[in-house]
Amino acid sequence: MAKKEISSAVIKRLPRYYRYLGELLEEGIDRISSNELSERMRVTASQIRQDLNNFGGFGQQGYGYNVRYLHEEIAKILGIDTKHNMIIIGAGNLGLAIAKYANFGKRGFIIKALFDKNPELIGKKVGDIDILDMDMLESFIKENDIEIAALTIPKGDATAIAQEAVSYGVRAIWNFAHTDLRLPEYVTVENVHLSDSLMRLSYNIRWQEKDDING
Amino acid sequence: MAKKEISSAVIKRLPRYYRYLGELLEEGIDRISSNELSERMRVTASQIRQDLNNFGGFGQQGYGYNVRYLHEEIAKILGIDTKHNMIIIGAGNLGLAIAKYANFGKRGFIIKALFDKNPELIGKKVGDIDILDMDMLESFIKENDIEIAALTIPKGDATAIAQEAVSYGVRAIWNFAHTDLRLPEYVTVENVHLSDSLMRLSYNIRWQEKDDING
Repeated sequence: MAKKEISSAVIKRLPRYYRYLGELLEEGIDRISSNELSERMRVTASQIRQDLNNFGGFGQQGYGYNVRYLHEEIAKILGIDTKHNMIIIGAGNLGLAIAKYANFGKRGFIIKALFDKNPELIGKKVGDIDILDMDMLESFIKENDIEIAALTIPKGDATAIAQEAVSYGVRAIWNFAHTDLRLPEYVTVENVHLSDSLMRLSYNIRWQEKDDING
Repeated sequence: MAKKEISSAVIKRLPRYYRYLGELLEEGIDRISSNELSERMRVTASQIRQDLNNFGGFGQQGYGYNVRYLHEEIAKILGIDTKHNMIIIGAGNLGLAIAKYANFGKRGFIIKALFDKNPELIGKKVGDIDILDMDMLESFIKENDIEIAALTIPKGDATAIAQEAVSYGVRAIWNFAHTDLRLPEYVTVENVHLSDSLMRLSYNIRWQEKDDING
């Protein structure tokens, strides 16, 4: 499992492979050929063979891929074969949506607490998960070995709060705030910029129209 | 404003330029040099000059970019200089989070209604926006010239419901369901796969560790 040999383009595609392989397992399918997988994923069979050959070439002519094995190998590469303790900062609707999405737990992302500064929310529970006061952030991160903080707050405070969480030991920020965070280089930041996504959609609508009109 | 001359790599970066230019306007900054913008965006000045030269070369040596002009030009290219009528299908926490996020409205994405099949939600309001019964989907889309449907429902029903919305006239799906939709090619689909994003984050944590250990 040598990272350096796998290109970042392949890495970017891995979560999608993982998702499709998971769906196959749910359907009770143990083996699949690159052609069948190609049809499902709408990617060429040759691309699939090239991508999956990175993981030891366990596809065989006329035999197909071992779905469970591949699913497990990709999980290891993605680092989701171990548990990750996570907190959510911001108990608004987006924070609650993430807290309630059970599939993250299945993939090893364990949500340990939500944090908010709103006194009306502090002390409440979301399922089994407590909503705690921001004052507790330091002690909670240190005592619960928190690796990941999801940031579901407005952009104004986002960098300051992320820096605070990092100073207490958080190593990765899942950033939903509509801004780019200023953090030390060793911190992993994964951005989910919903407005940017909506603008890409809008761009595609606009130019699809023009293409329709212009031929 | 010729689309064909702009590479898809530049297009992908446009929402980020748009965001930074918007922040500059909020701060009352009208002109900015590529060097200053480079420092803010943590992109090389030469990349910024290359990217922004696509839009007519309105940066001048020693004078800088006209922030408002550039902001407006990029808005046109992104198709956010006109209004887009949108509905949200799925009035769970994620649907509510999107409905309440005022910035989408500011960028011309007008949320006209939420839809759900849960009788306890139907008839309620989120701010000014009604939560309607799925039975109303067809007439509402047709009567309100709905272009975009945000899909904030579990993956099981997602493709069927997206197909239904498209058959009534929706032209673009903003898909939060954890699956790839099967839709006609002329439909614009923009996916927000949160689990995929979390796996990329996990991948970065894992290999950052190894790099730390291995030097």
